[in-house]
Amino acid sequence: MLGSALLIILGDGAVAQALLSNNEMGNEVTINLCFGFGLMMGHLTAITGGAAGHLNPAITLANCLFRGFPWRKLPIYVLAQVVGCGIGAACIFGIYRNAITAYDGGRRQVTGTLRTAGIYCTYPVSFLDLPGRAMQELVGTIVLVFFVNAVACQSSPHLSYKLPTEWNLIRALVLGLALYAIGASLGWQTGYAINPARDFGPRLVSYMAGYGREVFTTAGYYFWIPIVMPCVGAISGQLLFDFIVYEGEHDNFVTNPTMAVERLMENMRRQKKTGDADIEVSRF
Amino acid sequence: MLGSALLIILGDGAVAQALLSNNEMGNEVTINLCFGFGLMMGHLTAITGGAAGHLNPAITLANCLFRGFPWRKLPIYVLAQVVGCGIGAACIFGIYRNAITAYDGGRRQVTGTLRTAGIYCTYPVSFLDLPGRAMQELVGTIVLVFFVNAVACQSSPHLSYKLPTEWNLIRALVLGLALYAIGASLGWQTGYAINPARDFGPRLVSYMAGYGREVFTTAGYYFWIPIVMPCVGAISGQLLFDFIVYEGEHDNFVTNPTMAVERLMENMRRQKKTGDADIEVSRF
Amino acid sequence: MLGSALLIILGDGAVAQALLSNNEMGNEVTINLCFGFGLMMGHLTAITGGAAGHLNPAITLANCLFRGFPWRKLPIYVLAQVVGCGIGAACIFGIYRNAITAYDGGRRQVTGTLRTAGIYCTYPVSFLDLPGRAMQELVGTIVLVFFVNAVACQSSPHLSYKLPTEWNLIRALVLGLALYAIGASLGWQTGYAINPARDFGPRLVSYMAGYGREVFTTAGYYFWIPIVMPCVGAISGQLLFDFIVYEGEHDNFVTNPTMAVERLMENMRRQKKTGDADIEVSRF
Amino acid sequence: MLGSALLIILGDGAVAQALLSNNEMGNEVTINLCFGFGLMMGHLTAITGGAAGHLNPAITLANCLFRGFPWRKLPIYVLAQVVGCGIGAACIFGIYRNAITAYDGGRRQVTGTLRTAGIYCTYPVSFLDLPGRAMQELVGTIVLVFFVNAVACQSSPHLSYKLPTEWNLIRALVLGLALYAIGASLGWQTGYAINPARDFGPRLVSYMAGYGREVFTTAGYYFWIPIVMPCVGAISGQLLFDFIVYEGEHDNFVTNPTMAVERLMENMRRQKKTGDADIEVSRF
Repeated sequence: MLGSALLIILGDGAVAQALLSNNEMGNEVTINLCFGFGLMMGHLTAITGGAAGHLNPAITLANCLFRGFPWRKLPIYVLAQVVGCGIGAACIFGIYRNAITAYDGGRRQVTGTLRTAGIYCTYPVSFLDLPGRAMQELVGTIVLVFFVNAVACQSSPHLSYKLPTEWNLIRALVLGLALYAIGASLGWQTGYAINPARDFGPRLVSYMAGYGREVFTTAGYYFWIPIVMPCVGAISGQLLFDFIVYEGEHDNFVTNPTMAVERLMENMRRQKKTGDADIEVSRF
Repeated sequence: MLGSALLIILGDGAVAQALLSNNEMGNEVTINLCFGFGLMMGHLTAITGGAAGHLNPAITLANCLFRGFPWRKLPIYVLAQVVGCGIGAACIFGIYRNAITAYDGGRRQVTGTLRTAGIYCTYPVSFLDLPGRAMQELVGTIVLVFFVNAVACQSSPHLSYKLPTEWNLIRALVLGLALYAIGASLGWQTGYAINPARDFGPRLVSYMAGYGREVFTTAGYYFWIPIVMPCVGAISGQLLFDFIVYEGEHDNFVTNPTMAVERLMENMRRQKKTGDADIEVSRF
Repeated sequence: MLGSALLIILGDGAVAQALLSNNEMGNEVTINLCFGFGLMMGHLTAITGGAAGHLNPAITLANCLFRGFPWRKLPIYVLAQVVGCGIGAACIFGIYRNAITAYDGGRRQVTGTLRTAGIYCTYPVSFLDLPGRAMQELVGTIVLVFFVNAVACQSSPHLSYKLPTEWNLIRALVLGLALYAIGASLGWQTGYAINPARDFGPRLVSYMAGYGREVFTTAGYYFWIPIVMPCVGAISGQLLFDFIVYEGEHDNFVTNPTMAVERLMENMRRQKKTGDADIEVSRF
Repeated sequence: MLGSALLIILGDGAVAQALLSNNEMGNEVTINLCFGFGLMMGHLTAITGGAAGHLNPAITLANCLFRGFPWRKLPIYVLAQVVGCGIGAACIFGIYRNAITAYDGGRRQVTGTLRTAGIYCTYPVSFLDLPGRAMQELVGTIVLVFFVNAVACQSSPHLSYKLPTEWNLIRALVLGLALYAIGASLGWQTGYAINPARDFGPRLVSYMAGYGREVFTTAGYYFWIPIVMPCVGAISGQLLFDFIVYEGEHDNFVTNPTMAVERLMENMRRQKKTGDADIEVSRF
């Protein structure tokens, strides 16, 4: 889990760095591809370690709500994801510190022409207003959720539940390329965080690395949008997906609302008592 | 079906947008890749929902004619595809409205230097005459049909009919990359609609979004070409493919003309009577 | 066979066209990717039609010599490959004629600054001398042969001979990406024909399309190099590969020279008598 | 083994060449993709020949230490890798000699503005100090080791040990794309050797090809860093990976330190006696 989150940011933040440092050893194609392949490898590493493979708190949340992923694992997963992303960002800062200083002359900036804060987390373009930013992140996450489901459901409901693990390679590859496509089509205006951990962990690190409070205050305290909107997007995307296409064997809000709510309740109650409520763990 | 058409335009139109808005966060490689991966994910989403996975009315038409896909499903599929593409285009317009206004100063243009109508649908280059445009779309669709058949036939005739669904991941990946190649080799002159729904749905949306009647009248009422020629192309491409390479188990015009015509007739007759004519549904 | 050769040039020549026409809707990445994906799809189409899937006379020749591919099929395959590539080039000329005229003002040129002959076939850079050109094509083809063998041998010798056809999708994908890599690393100086049919067929078409005798005479009658050297390269590459790594079940010159020569002789003798000598057809 | 090392450099060095020669037929995307696909094809060729498929002495070393790869094979593998990379670099020098002379006027340079030594091996950017360079290579190799493990472990521990060889195609593809991502995110500052053979073999060749002693002395005798640091990185990366995620069936330093050390000792002792100590060969 930690290892996976570490990997995704190694792959990701590093690219942003490659771009910002010179704009000659990288460009938006490079960056989006690396986010995609970073997801691919991070996912594979997490799975290899026995984790469920989601590197995104919003996806984990949707799994808890709609796929019976145990609620008690949610805080551990989210913490691991945020810390992992932070460690990744710290690594990037360590490796590229010389280059950053060569670029901005040692004065870390969030908004100036020599700004380098975009290496760590996302900032919106200036002409986009607040609803536009929120909607951008919302739609981006909904599309992501659709893609994750489309890739995951290729296997689980139609076939036997336990898939040969090798197919994870293909699933991860397709999902990585799909994330590339999201970045290339919906990634301009807000930098497509679509993942609270990917955005907040590195933002915290950039705050500690000397970029100052501006990392939170800039663009009208923008930092809360890539935390809240992906969660809203993941939930509404999952609802939409289940409503339109999902026919899996799990009960969920759409196919069986009352039972799903009941199970949710029971699950949470049991958890408080025994601390052991893994009815089922869906591999996403 | 609707969900899938929605996805393809989310992936697609968004890229066109990314390009037109700044030409710095995207280029023709980006766009073509996103159309390819958009097809990949849209196809997967449609399949996951139990649909047949074709997102192209021309392909659906060819399936009806040559592969026994039930005719009564044709209008539903076509409607879903056009509406889905329209919804996708509307989402793109919603997300990028601020950016479009920043680009063209609020005056939506189809032909000026600040034109943004190319975000939604395709327009030909000026030096190409009418036969050239028609031929471009025709050849593009023929190539697409060859590719779709080459990918689909890898499985159906030679192996058992019911494939493990996981292979859809590979098929979708290869087909997506093939669509990229079409865009990169035959996509310049007319924007490679090669799909009536992909072109007409968004065109309608751009008309409603304030681009005016010019979206239909420009370039000598060009709009009918990406509707008609892909259908002609799909039919002639399928004929050509079946004539040269296809050896599947379905009867078709080439391998068994009389029987295919008979079945076609019977199929339509039965449909009028009972409304239930699914002799066989070929998964494309 | 014909269909496949047609496809590869559709995918390929079209890209060269996209580049030469404007250099804005394509670049060397685009072109190389399209050659790769063109190979992928052409190969798949050929296989779907029941052919052996090689689109390259040099590879077919190497198969005859080292893998027991029937000699009597060689002329048919070579003819189909050359004609197919020619048809593809003719299609490209037809589709892009308007654009070519807009580019060169109607005067077809092989060597001027507005030259467009490079759309159809390959021409070397001027600073490269004859041995350099020959060596470039030789090494390029050897590398290609290594790649083809590495991809093909993943399946044939180690596993059962009859593979599930679905794996062709993967093989074609990997081979297409490998061809991209050849184009991006060894494709500059001579345009990496590494395939006699790919070069000679379109060259003939460009001669007929009004480019004049210069298509043959230019660069010191260069045209024979991409015909002869790929054949030499394929044979020497196959020899080298078999010598170093191949451990298949076929007898060949390296593992069993006398028997291989004997079989070759017998095969040719039998063919003259009965016209039926398919001892075994290796799928490459 | 030799064949594989040859291939990786053919694919790789050639790209560096394509770039340096004109910067118009290639760029950093091209180069990184070719290193990735070069790894893919080199790995496949090596496997086809019956070798273990690692083209990197640091990875081989980590395999010896942590996966029971026989120590007596280490020197042969390392030698083959270095010589293979050297042969590849010599081929590139041969093919592109004309172009290099056209570029630098015949005076081979390591540091001037017309320098071409970067074709063969890696040189760091000037603003990076020694610890930065070492850390860059260290982190790059650790990430590589994580990726290699994530891809390899998809199969070995969870499933049966003997995998169908076809999956190697997928593994090689995913690993190739992962290497691309490393190059695009961590490849700028030191050129991501992350492989002693890939760097030292070609460096030796460039020394012999007339670049002079500067290939070793420049940048403060930089040449030893891409030899030593990848080994350190591979070992520490493997330790880290095993500590966090690995649950394979092999005993290793982390899961069972005493036994692993014992086996290591015994393995080396036995080797001296009998020269036959292949307890197990892990395919990476």
